[in-house]
Amino acid sequence: MDKSKLSVDPVIPNLYRKAREEGISTVFDRYEAQQPQCGFGLTGLCCRHCVQGPCRIDPFGEGPQAGICGATAEVITARNLLRQVTAGAAAHVDHAYDVLEVLEQIAQGTESYSIKDQEKLKQVAFTLGIDTANKTEQEIVEEMCQIIYRDFANSGATPMTYLKANSPRERLETWEKLGVLPRNPDREIREALHQTTMGMDADPVNLILKTIRLGLVDGFAGLKLATDLQDIIFGTPQPVVTEANLGVLKEDYVNIIVHGHVPLLSEKIVEWSRKLEDEAKKAGAKGINLAGICCTGNEVLMRQGIPLATNFLAQELAIITGAVDLMVVDVQCIMPSLAEIAACYHTRLVTTMPIVKIPGAEHVPFTTETADEASQQIVRMAIESYQKRNPAKVYIPREKAKVVAGFSVEAIVKALAKLNPDDPLKPLIDNIVSGNILGVVATVGCNNVKVKHDWFHIELVKELIKNNVLVVTTGCSAHALAKAGLMDPAAAEWAGEGLRAVLTAIGTANDLGGPLPPVLHMGSCVDNSRIGDLVIAVANYLKVSPKDLPIAASAPEYQHEKALSIGTWAVAMGIMTHLGVVPPVVGSPKVTRILTQDAEALIGGKFYVETDPYKAAAGIIEHIKAKRALLNL
Amino acid sequence: MDKSKLSVDPVIPNLYRKAREEGISTVFDRYEAQQPQCGFGLTGLCCRHCVQGPCRIDPFGEGPQAGICGATAEVITARNLLRQVTAGAAAHVDHAYDVLEVLEQIAQGTESYSIKDQEKLKQVAFTLGIDTANKTEQEIVEEMCQIIYRDFANSGATPMTYLKANSPRERLETWEKLGVLPRNPDREIREALHQTTMGMDADPVNLILKTIRLGLVDGFAGLKLATDLQDIIFGTPQPVVTEANLGVLKEDYVNIIVHGHVPLLSEKIVEWSRKLEDEAKKAGAKGINLAGICCTGNEVLMRQGIPLATNFLAQELAIITGAVDLMVVDVQCIMPSLAEIAACYHTRLVTTMPIVKIPGAEHVPFTTETADEASQQIVRMAIESYQKRNPAKVYIPREKAKVVAGFSVEAIVKALAKLNPDDPLKPLIDNIVSGNILGVVATVGCNNVKVKHDWFHIELVKELIKNNVLVVTTGCSAHALAKAGLMDPAAAEWAGEGLRAVLTAIGTANDLGGPLPPVLHMGSCVDNSRIGDLVIAVANYLKVSPKDLPIAASAPEYQHEKALSIGTWAVAMGIMTHLGVVPPVVGSPKVTRILTQDAEALIGGKFYVETDPYKAAAGIIEHIKAKRALLNL
Repeated sequence: MDKSKLSVDPVIPNLYRKAREEGISTVFDRYEAQQPQCGFGLTGLCCRHCVQGPCRIDPFGEGPQAGICGATAEVITARNLLRQVTAGAAAHVDHAYDVLEVLEQIAQGTESYSIKDQEKLKQVAFTLGIDTANKTEQEIVEEMCQIIYRDFANSGATPMTYLKANSPRERLETWEKLGVLPRNPDREIREALHQTTMGMDADPVNLILKTIRLGLVDGFAGLKLATDLQDIIFGTPQPVVTEANLGVLKEDYVNIIVHGHVPLLSEKIVEWSRKLEDEAKKAGAKGINLAGICCTGNEVLMRQGIPLATNFLAQELAIITGAVDLMVVDVQCIMPSLAEIAACYHTRLVTTMPIVKIPGAEHVPFTTETADEASQQIVRMAIESYQKRNPAKVYIPREKAKVVAGFSVEAIVKALAKLNPDDPLKPLIDNIVSGNILGVVATVGCNNVKVKHDWFHIELVKELIKNNVLVVTTGCSAHALAKAGLMDPAAAEWAGEGLRAVLTAIGTANDLGGPLPPVLHMGSCVDNSRIGDLVIAVANYLKVSPKDLPIAASAPEYQHEKALSIGTWAVAMGIMTHLGVVPPVVGSPKVTRILTQDAEALIGGKFYVETDPYKAAAGIIEHIKAKRALLNL
Repeated sequence: MDKSKLSVDPVIPNLYRKAREEGISTVFDRYEAQQPQCGFGLTGLCCRHCVQGPCRIDPFGEGPQAGICGATAEVITARNLLRQVTAGAAAHVDHAYDVLEVLEQIAQGTESYSIKDQEKLKQVAFTLGIDTANKTEQEIVEEMCQIIYRDFANSGATPMTYLKANSPRERLETWEKLGVLPRNPDREIREALHQTTMGMDADPVNLILKTIRLGLVDGFAGLKLATDLQDIIFGTPQPVVTEANLGVLKEDYVNIIVHGHVPLLSEKIVEWSRKLEDEAKKAGAKGINLAGICCTGNEVLMRQGIPLATNFLAQELAIITGAVDLMVVDVQCIMPSLAEIAACYHTRLVTTMPIVKIPGAEHVPFTTETADEASQQIVRMAIESYQKRNPAKVYIPREKAKVVAGFSVEAIVKALAKLNPDDPLKPLIDNIVSGNILGVVATVGCNNVKVKHDWFHIELVKELIKNNVLVVTTGCSAHALAKAGLMDPAAAEWAGEGLRAVLTAIGTANDLGGPLPPVLHMGSCVDNSRIGDLVIAVANYLKVSPKDLPIAASAPEYQHEKALSIGTWAVAMGIMTHLGVVPPVVGSPKVTRILTQDAEALIGGKFYVETDPYKAAAGIIEHIKAKRALLNL
């Protein structure tokens, strides 16, 4: 395979060559081996929902136009999409629920976790209508847990409290009119699965409306709930300075990588890596060096300044360095191949969750009760492993980039307040109105091996900032941009004049001695809710709907079902959402048209599919300009 | 297509020919058009859980042995199976939940529904530990709803109350040891979806254990819950005499077909068909003739003696008769093709549920509040439609079979009590011990166009009863056997001598003037819980585990994800469960071995796959004999 085609990340070619030399195959090789991929699957025209199948629709109209039960292309594609979005939503709701359980245990007096951010606790309490006066922290937490659990226990038709409490009225009215307001999130997940079984819904419009409902489930019972509770427990991020890329691994330190998504584990690993530093020194290391992959990497980067090792597509290559003593994972986006690759090195792979086991990995059960013990054990396993590291197999790339991150909405508002303490959003709005900032785009989502690694993220964003579009980012998109130096304040020079002036003004007002970076890292994939909060805050300020703002979202290299559900939430919020990889629905022109065109009139948002980053940037800018024009800007 | 290969049902050839002559394609044609079906899908070796895919594993070991993420054949097949079983469980839980909502509304004083079976109410209350003394019916219902809703609101780790209250201690211990006891059923569904997203569980054993857990969710939060509550609201079935097959349609009556699964709608249609009989007469008909398809057909057959039109695979042919004035559907197993076919006749197709819409059908929303109005409206639509029937397009087959059905556990015990009022199970047990009854087999599940329609059900059962195996049945299997005359007491002559003697003794004691039929119709697919109850009752009587009994289950022609989840529940109950269609897991020898072999040592039950009915009968009989030997019988 031509190494230059794999990635724009400078560390990839050498590590890929090392893997090949050591006889190890990686995601790039497996992708090549899977070519050509099934066209029916790619276009969404394959159905395996019953054992009469599999059935396939001929997209050229010559072969079958219906499955055995009679399901047409539009039914099959819409049903497949609904199942994928439901699975994505389920993943995020499950994540949020894990955090909710910890919050409940804090109220019950667990010693493993505590409330780090009383401010956020009060703010969330206020949003939920909890009267906090004369209540202890514990009482507030208890009441909050009760309210949230009631959403999950709701057997009636009333919409989710957490959604209602956090959504603008105009959106609520739109969602109600369309009949897409979710009730109990778990019930919606169950019902969506039911609705997609054989012999159920055959109406693509009805299926797409349910898909939107599941997007809202993800947005509010997944993303928003997870972020809010994580902030309460672990603190709301504030600006941090750190580094990104595999150059952050250190030759003479115990290198531990945290990989996965939920900070319950990774925060504890951070804590115990610091506490057990001396043991590492006794074992001959200079200390313990922690780095992150995927979203749990984002979580500890945002809150603890832990450097970023790499993103999704290069997770295997982290191990190929031979310098990772232990990789500990929780949930989501963990390639099953890691165990086989770790076995070629001294690297210990540790799974921790009951729903993620990998043959060949070591399993250390991690629960709230065992959080401290398990984390100690894992850090000590890493120290042991360090002593078995084979220097002959070690190659640590030199490349790493400076990263200024930690831009929660609270951090952004705080920075803006230095310009206008009484009305902190005003400077942002004024600069949007004046055109210094043309608009705001969120780039989010995964890597996908079908796209040259990180390339689409970076090229798209460079085009956007050059055109004075402020970029906020999360997930593996944030990783790509971090590694590319776009979170270094120096990158402000790649921004257009207007944007650069704004970044410099804010940076100066905050005594940074220079501009803010042109790309603001807002966190993990669940932290897309931060972007939602920012959008709502700006819309409320301007007394318009989020759908009217000169903004867009983009998932240039998405691959996961979670990305599809997040994207659906964004569309439901009224945001045009670009996809850089063709979603598996194009087998039905009707479903494609609803998602990419008709949706806009119904809900304000729509999907925009464009696989060329430059054209995508142009399309997004055109959209932003059109929205500006409608606002008379 | 060779008509003789389609079905053993005598009405099919003529109706299939009529369809062809009228230019209408049916499930048989669509099946042919789908050939050859994708081998990757058939063997479970295709993964579409992320947008890097679709990925496929080469079963011959020459091509890729892992998907792009590294998932192997065993991960992909086990993950696919878990998703299918989760979807099946979700369908049944959603069904039960709809009935639970009606029970709650009864407590709140709705006039649409009421409690028909106070006995069953008390029995279920007793099982749940509700003290019924000095409580009104309404208070008992309220408390029952609260207890059941608590299962769905349970945020803790405690297992489902409804499962614990209804399971033998030995099973509970086994499930606990394996870690498969479900908590909140909706949480298990959510978690299973999460567990099967990209980058999650890569351990096939862990995935299969979760699959078993979801089977238990289906068994107790789906099947058992639905059946119990339906009995409370609509009455527990008692023996009824009726007829089966499309010969039950009547030329000079308004013919209405109820199709779907939940009796909330069909019971109301029965009620209003009777009440509006005069309107039908005024419109020139002799009256209103109701018949059922699929499980809602079973529900009204069991409780109201409504004749059966046909089963799953022939649902389209019912319309092809040209004699169906209206077909009203609720949920599940409704071919989307029905709308297109109905449009070729005067037949009105009416959908009623928010999660089942079909373009081309008329939608009459059906809720508890609108139950009576909607049902009246639908019956009147049928009367209107009757007046537009085109006699030139009508062909009603002559064939129909006599059916004695209605064998709830309560009905069976009542019949046995005529032989031994003090100890009603004793005659059954004694006859099993003596060998008059070799064992008991439940044949259940769907039709599947891959199998000659009804053939496997009938051939298997004929072999079994000939060998003195008592057959109980539900679902489309029951339909097949009903249409084949196996629920006519006269069919007792096809039974072996021992079984025939027992059937005659019970029939005589019950003044039937002859034997019971050799096949006992126990209801709809959710009524598989009745079979579970019977198994538990016999096991408790003998003080053994269900897994020790000389019994088996068989789904000879299954197709639906629900069948996979029911089958998994049966295996979890300790019952060997035969499948007549190869499930999509054979791409992984390991997963196949766990399901068909290793499972037995772990949980007592296992899957047994055999696609030849005669070999399957032999295999099942061999299994029963082995179980008898272990009990020293």
